[in-house]
Amino acid sequence: MAKTCEFFFDYASPYSYLASEQVEALAKRTGADIRWRPFLLGGVYKATGNVPPISNSSKAAYLFKDLVDWARHLGLPELRLPENFPSNSLRANRLGMVAAEQGRIVPFSQAVFRAAFTEGKDITDPAALAELARAAGLEPEKALARSETQEIKDALRRNTDEAVARGAFGAPTFFVGDEMFFGNDRLMFVERVLSTP
Amino acid sequence: MAKTCEFFFDYASPYSYLASEQVEALAKRTGADIRWRPFLLGGVYKATGNVPPISNSSKAAYLFKDLVDWARHLGLPELRLPENFPSNSLRANRLGMVAAEQGRIVPFSQAVFRAAFTEGKDITDPAALAELARAAGLEPEKALARSETQEIKDALRRNTDEAVARGAFGAPTFFVGDEMFFGNDRLMFVERVLSTP
Repeated sequence: MAKTCEFFFDYASPYSYLASEQVEALAKRTGADIRWRPFLLGGVYKATGNVPPISNSSKAAYLFKDLVDWARHLGLPELRLPENFPSNSLRANRLGMVAAEQGRIVPFSQAVFRAAFTEGKDITDPAALAELARAAGLEPEKALARSETQEIKDALRRNTDEAVARGAFGAPTFFVGDEMFFGNDRLMFVERVLSTP
Repeated sequence: MAKTCEFFFDYASPYSYLASEQVEALAKRTGADIRWRPFLLGGVYKATGNVPPISNSSKAAYLFKDLVDWARHLGLPELRLPENFPSNSLRANRLGMVAAEQGRIVPFSQAVFRAAFTEGKDITDPAALAELARAAGLEPEKALARSETQEIKDALRRNTDEAVARGAFGAPTFFVGDEMFFGNDRLMFVERVLSTP
């Protein structure tokens, strides 16, 4: 039976973007299913007491250079950060939940991540999000309306709480069964586990 | 002309241990010189306001599993942590400075790191350190006496201050010229730079 890798991410997270560009190829190589699960990184930080790298000035000074190195390493377009980085990704993440229930989470997520981190687009803007939703095969007005329902808000919150309860403290976080892996830079370990019969 | 990679590390740091097991092979592949430079990770944290992963309970819970994954990935013996982890590595780091001035930094460092992270030995113990110093070709009593001199204490402090001034916020940290790389998990970027004419 094919294994499943749960991929918890937040559209504000550039390391989640880097992971998003790798997981589908990883799925093809291993035969695994990837379950894309938006969560709220801010909620994870709040629940765990962890802090984002940019909260420390020395780490912040290194962050962009590291991201640029990663994008080059992966053969991706030159990495950019949105002007309002770190973006408030609440609306985008809720829309991601809608995309997931409509079977469009992969194209929608790739569109949002690429807009943010290769074009530096403002992904807090509803008009920009509507355009990305449309490009991913969603009906933008319906999807935006759905994303503001209590049901979707609660579902996103539950993803966040669940990830924290299972040990997550940052993004991206992966689970294969109960085994957790933190970071784009641990995908080789995820692949080993997915490749082990 | 061969490039140089400066490798800042602390004997208390298990990720520094993981790096120490990779840098000499990297040097051979690239023709680069590795300059092993002990520093005080506690001093780096104090100066930058950064905190060690174990200061957060969620990160601490993941740390050991991640280290075990890394050791397996690199084909190293099963990873252990000393009982008193994180060890007070001041004495070991000072002795590392003595090993460096006597041209024995590589065997001494490998002996200390392996004792700590494959045997779980207490590297705060002067008798254990003396034995490791002897195995690395140092005269243990002379080396220990030298390690307590103001000259050595100051030199270690200068390494720490210099690394912080150049942008370091954790261990291991690498520099190729002015370009900094943080973490055992960024050695592929170090290698790319060392391999570029």
